[in-house]
Amino acid sequence: MARRRKTPARVSHEVDIAVQFYDVDPMNIVWHGNYVRYLEQARSELLQRIGFGYLEMNEAGYAFPVVDLQLKFVRSAAFGQTVRVKASLIEWENRIRIDYLVYNIETNETLTKGQTTQLAVELKSGDTQFDCPAILLERVAAML
Amino acid sequence: MARRRKTPARVSHEVDIAVQFYDVDPMNIVWHGNYVRYLEQARSELLQRIGFGYLEMNEAGYAFPVVDLQLKFVRSAAFGQTVRVKASLIEWENRIRIDYLVYNIETNETLTKGQTTQLAVELKSGDTQFDCPAILLERVAAML
Amino acid sequence: MARRRKTPARVSHEVDIAVQFYDVDPMNIVWHGNYVRYLEQARSELLQRIGFGYLEMNEAGYAFPVVDLQLKFVRSAAFGQTVRVKASLIEWENRIRIDYLVYNIETNETLTKGQTTQLAVELKSGDTQFDCPAILLERVAAML
Amino acid sequence: MARRRKTPARVSHEVDIAVQFYDVDPMNIVWHGNYVRYLEQARSELLQRIGFGYLEMNEAGYAFPVVDLQLKFVRSAAFGQTVRVKASLIEWENRIRIDYLVYNIETNETLTKGQTTQLAVELKSGDTQFDCPAILLERVAAML
Repeated sequence: MARRRKTPARVSHEVDIAVQFYDVDPMNIVWHGNYVRYLEQARSELLQRIGFGYLEMNEAGYAFPVVDLQLKFVRSAAFGQTVRVKASLIEWENRIRIDYLVYNIETNETLTKGQTTQLAVELKSGDTQFDCPAILLERVAAML
Repeated sequence: MARRRKTPARVSHEVDIAVQFYDVDPMNIVWHGNYVRYLEQARSELLQRIGFGYLEMNEAGYAFPVVDLQLKFVRSAAFGQTVRVKASLIEWENRIRIDYLVYNIETNETLTKGQTTQLAVELKSGDTQFDCPAILLERVAAML
Repeated sequence: MARRRKTPARVSHEVDIAVQFYDVDPMNIVWHGNYVRYLEQARSELLQRIGFGYLEMNEAGYAFPVVDLQLKFVRSAAFGQTVRVKASLIEWENRIRIDYLVYNIETNETLTKGQTTQLAVELKSGDTQFDCPAILLERVAAML
Repeated sequence: MARRRKTPARVSHEVDIAVQFYDVDPMNIVWHGNYVRYLEQARSELLQRIGFGYLEMNEAGYAFPVVDLQLKFVRSAAFGQTVRVKASLIEWENRIRIDYLVYNIETNETLTKGQTTQLAVELKSGDTQFDCPAILLERVAAML
């Protein structure tokens, strides 16, 4: 059964991203859609650390498409700043749910909050799975 | 007071988007983050039709940053397909809320559902406003 | 033998692209890297018109990666403008070379000039080919 | 007078970039247009190291739009790899010309070669300048 962890997420990962010129819009702030790239960068590294990155997913016979994405934009980031993205694994038994906090590395202020949900799809059949593969559960267990 | 319209949104706009090669990821489907561009294309045209596009917002002294974005990915789109994005104005008094439906133009199947919320920011002061400028209300009223 | 056509290219295609907010940088002009997307949109439609789009290439057993890209930025484009991209097939016997002209639809002024070169790669062997597949030559011949 | 340096460029900078899932196309390789982002990331850091980053340019009263971009794609990069981009300052007196070498960090193989040319534009007048501001020449001289 999927459980929302009541305790603080123990499997998390942080990545620092320097805001690039091409990320910034005419309002002189990061265009909101670019945070999807920032989140993916943090998610990708988090899953690699767990030992279940995209390449390992594929070897295990699965893909994990994002089925839900939510973003709240609290404050803006400007060119020249570095933002830190913290990705925390919240669910991993029936689906992968990751929560994100993007914050200004100097002021510690929250810029953006996000969450993504991914479902396992068996590559051979193309069928969506309602339980995550055992290998993911084992690898997460090893980190807790 | 912000009201969710009970009646079907009467102010809406549809845009057709041909899926490009650069939109598609190694799974041969549109990378989920690219839907943020698709939504913005529809939103931009909808707001222009209302007579309150980004340039008109600026002339009126406001910007409308996206403060909330939600996306549900139901089915995937592939290179060579054309998707239709329907953007519907749901709220416009205290904030701009737009709902989106992305669907396959041939099968009529829903691909993605989305919503964005934008708040008015007065350009001069930088202050977030909790009512939309009168000009927006007038222009929406003229369309209903 | 590859021949640069002395006569004006007879196989060409134009596509109109509305500059989006997400295309524009803090200088209020289209970020130069986004023209690569504009070019690809025109190239993709040109190749489809010839009957040798990416899907048809793959069915024929080939991919055509871009091996060379050149862009000259003459004038800038702003949000709210529509640009027209004209893509012209220049070479197709040994490689695909396409030239591009991006211009302002209202003033007729040239914004950007570009060219791309693509080489055939046989999907089965992964080998680069120094002649284009016969099917491309036939389809181009049919259009001249 | 603009001089192409005969000696190896002494002002250069390297940046490592992990190829992201969203950078990769259906051929399982980095989409060619994404190298424009990779180059800009290296260029931006190089100019900052010189003490003439985008923010310093603006303070000095100038922008430096890219007027020419050339890219040769030699080998492909895949998801999971890290590429190194070396940016070298080649001209700085009349215009900024930077050459780029993108290579595979493990095999040392060249993936992409590039060059960009930027011209100074005075922000106040909007006029293109045919000499770079003295401040750039001083800062480059200090690094040689």
